[in-house]
Amino acid sequence: MNSDSCFRRKREPHVGPAAVTPINNKASSGGLPKTARGEATRKSILDAAERVIGSNGYSDASIGQITREAGVAQGTFYIYFKTKEQVFSELVLEMGRLVRHRIAEATANVPNRLDAEKAGLTAFLGFVQAHPDLYRIVQEALFVDPKAYRAYYESFANGYIDGLNTALRAGQISPGDPETRAWALMGVARALGEQLVVFNTKTPIQDLVETGFDLIANGLKP
Amino acid sequence: MNSDSCFRRKREPHVGPAAVTPINNKASSGGLPKTARGEATRKSILDAAERVIGSNGYSDASIGQITREAGVAQGTFYIYFKTKEQVFSELVLEMGRLVRHRIAEATANVPNRLDAEKAGLTAFLGFVQAHPDLYRIVQEALFVDPKAYRAYYESFANGYIDGLNTALRAGQISPGDPETRAWALMGVARALGEQLVVFNTKTPIQDLVETGFDLIANGLKP
Repeated sequence: MNSDSCFRRKREPHVGPAAVTPINNKASSGGLPKTARGEATRKSILDAAERVIGSNGYSDASIGQITREAGVAQGTFYIYFKTKEQVFSELVLEMGRLVRHRIAEATANVPNRLDAEKAGLTAFLGFVQAHPDLYRIVQEALFVDPKAYRAYYESFANGYIDGLNTALRAGQISPGDPETRAWALMGVARALGEQLVVFNTKTPIQDLVETGFDLIANGLKP
Repeated sequence: MNSDSCFRRKREPHVGPAAVTPINNKASSGGLPKTARGEATRKSILDAAERVIGSNGYSDASIGQITREAGVAQGTFYIYFKTKEQVFSELVLEMGRLVRHRIAEATANVPNRLDAEKAGLTAFLGFVQAHPDLYRIVQEALFVDPKAYRAYYESFANGYIDGLNTALRAGQISPGDPETRAWALMGVARALGEQLVVFNTKTPIQDLVETGFDLIANGLKP
């Protein structure tokens, strides 16, 4: 399942000057930014939405709070997003893309799956620490936008399943159903991240990684 | 942390006939039922709350819907609970008690920790299948009653940590931080349960257990 399939944002046609300066183009409401400046503004709105919705919850957050937090005019919001629901859905999917990107970067040059598990878990917990509202936002998606919630986890699972299948073929891990394993391993990472930012454990990230990785490595090794 | 510490229900003094027939005692609003009949009524209200809040979500659920679903008069609700918030908090804690009780029963006569992990995981997934709204209810507690959310998971973790410490002393598992391990193992169970009732996997419970247990047993064995 593609993480974007649940988010039906209308892609505006590329039409001359409007595409160069989308920030002034009211007609492109809900469209994708076409310039670096447009992308930066859209990103600042998503960052602000992360902080505002993370702190206040979806129902108490307003578009006005988000634009004030982002330091942009309220009208600017509507160049990029149609509704609060749309910015929330996009925020959930964007956070999923960011965390998957961070893990992919951390594991790109790690040929062995077990070493990659450790690097990936470390990268994930680092991301969680830098984005302490991730958990509240994704959990609230189960109620506000169940499709975005599913897409967030299923996109993760699909990448994980591919990685486990590759490692299995390379003899780097023991045989086992890759789908159920992927969910179980995501469950370990999710639980340790929640320890960090929801339950505020005193255990340092490095120790969480060591204990989690010990379980995973022994659990998977051939 | 005791699961009841977050739920400040005033315990009414035991006062003669009212305690024998609390169902007719308006003065005991919010008190604990003192009779089997009172306990059965309170339980039927909690069961109804599980279905109504699980289906509609907390904010859209009403006390009227809950009492209709329970087949009791609306006034009866107030004999046992003061508010919708209170019945929700008690529902979260009650579901935690029920699932811990189910796991404790399933593992009571299993002396080896690894075998107990398998029996406990099987019991947990069976409970989840019988209570498909468990996930929505507990996840919503993060927003409606964060103390109940914490109590739900911390009560679990505390029991798990005790079990791991006992197994470690008996040489049944390898050394490792019991707190982080407990959260990681709870993360595996939670993820497989979510696979079952939120992501509606086609994988049968027995196969989820086999794959999860293989990971856990190899991850923990001495």
